[in-house]
Amino acid sequence: MGGFVEQAIEKATHALVARDRKELEQVHQLEAKINEKHIEVDNACLEVLARLSPVAADLRLILAIIKINTDLERMGDQAVNISYNADRYLEDKEVTVRLDLSRMSELVREMVRDSLDAFLNGDTVLAQDVLERDDAVDELKNKAFEVLVPYMRQNPDNIEAALDLLLIARNLERMADHATNIAEDVIFACTGEDVRHGVGPSN
Amino acid sequence: MGGFVEQAIEKATHALVARDRKELEQVHQLEAKINEKHIEVDNACLEVLARLSPVAADLRLILAIIKINTDLERMGDQAVNISYNADRYLEDKEVTVRLDLSRMSELVREMVRDSLDAFLNGDTVLAQDVLERDDAVDELKNKAFEVLVPYMRQNPDNIEAALDLLLIARNLERMADHATNIAEDVIFACTGEDVRHGVGPSN
Repeated sequence: MGGFVEQAIEKATHALVARDRKELEQVHQLEAKINEKHIEVDNACLEVLARLSPVAADLRLILAIIKINTDLERMGDQAVNISYNADRYLEDKEVTVRLDLSRMSELVREMVRDSLDAFLNGDTVLAQDVLERDDAVDELKNKAFEVLVPYMRQNPDNIEAALDLLLIARNLERMADHATNIAEDVIFACTGEDVRHGVGPSN
Repeated sequence: MGGFVEQAIEKATHALVARDRKELEQVHQLEAKINEKHIEVDNACLEVLARLSPVAADLRLILAIIKINTDLERMGDQAVNISYNADRYLEDKEVTVRLDLSRMSELVREMVRDSLDAFLNGDTVLAQDVLERDDAVDELKNKAFEVLVPYMRQNPDNIEAALDLLLIARNLERMADHATNIAEDVIFACTGEDVRHGVGPSN
């Protein structure tokens, strides 16, 4: 499921950079697979809870899976949002500014991969590292705004296209937030420690 | 918790319309309360699962609560996002277009309230009604784009302010999505029927 999410991010941003609208269709196919897995995983968790009544660390693990599953599914939605924005963008004139959307996409994909690796290996150090990388993505998004707003001012005839790129930068930033949520859930599953909302251990 | 979320939406959009930056501070206080409740509810669910090992409808109910809790917490984040965007907006010249952000905010608040009422009363008809209202919010968001993009083109010196309003419209739309998620979870909790991803009953 994480692999599908990574691919969906990659395809959506590659299609944008390569100006290849056909590639965008693959994002929708990937999202359909993500949604299928989402239901499968949710049902499997329900079954484990009902049949095995796990407690302590096992219970935290299942709850983490339920939450991670939701975040992955929402990342699929965001990939589709990128694909819609990219599709509209590719109808317009190219926005000729230097943007690091490819770099942003790469960072987000690494965050997804590493948050899931952290989960599989119970690696809280890696999960913590993912949390810290969220700032770099936020910064790239802010930079995109800083470059695109003046562009819009100087090229009012191409505002829509610039706006589409802005929205894509926001979509990527939101995906990074989901990867961050996954990393927090990994830490909770491994340690019982609640690192959300900047509070200390909850038990 | 739902009440705090409703208030946060209301304060954030009222502050914007009344151009009252002081009111925005209250959004942050409300979000802190939402986050506190989020942790409390999550811990309570963990305890119920560990101690009572619920099955069937009871288990679905607890899982629905865990998911609804996450959606309410993310709505708090969105209210804070609105507050940041509104704060920046209020630094600039007023954007003099007719926008229905107040109406949008009202619709979203009603969706939150009704999705939670549907949960409390096990009312799947009301939950279904909430699902159907998502389109009206999407439409208002699209209208906001349709009005603001030409404004930006004609007022390139006030692009940032118009962009802030655009982002607020998106924040409200995302809140409606969360209310929709809650309504889906209510239907699942009540009937065991999975209405996500447009599939039929999952069991």
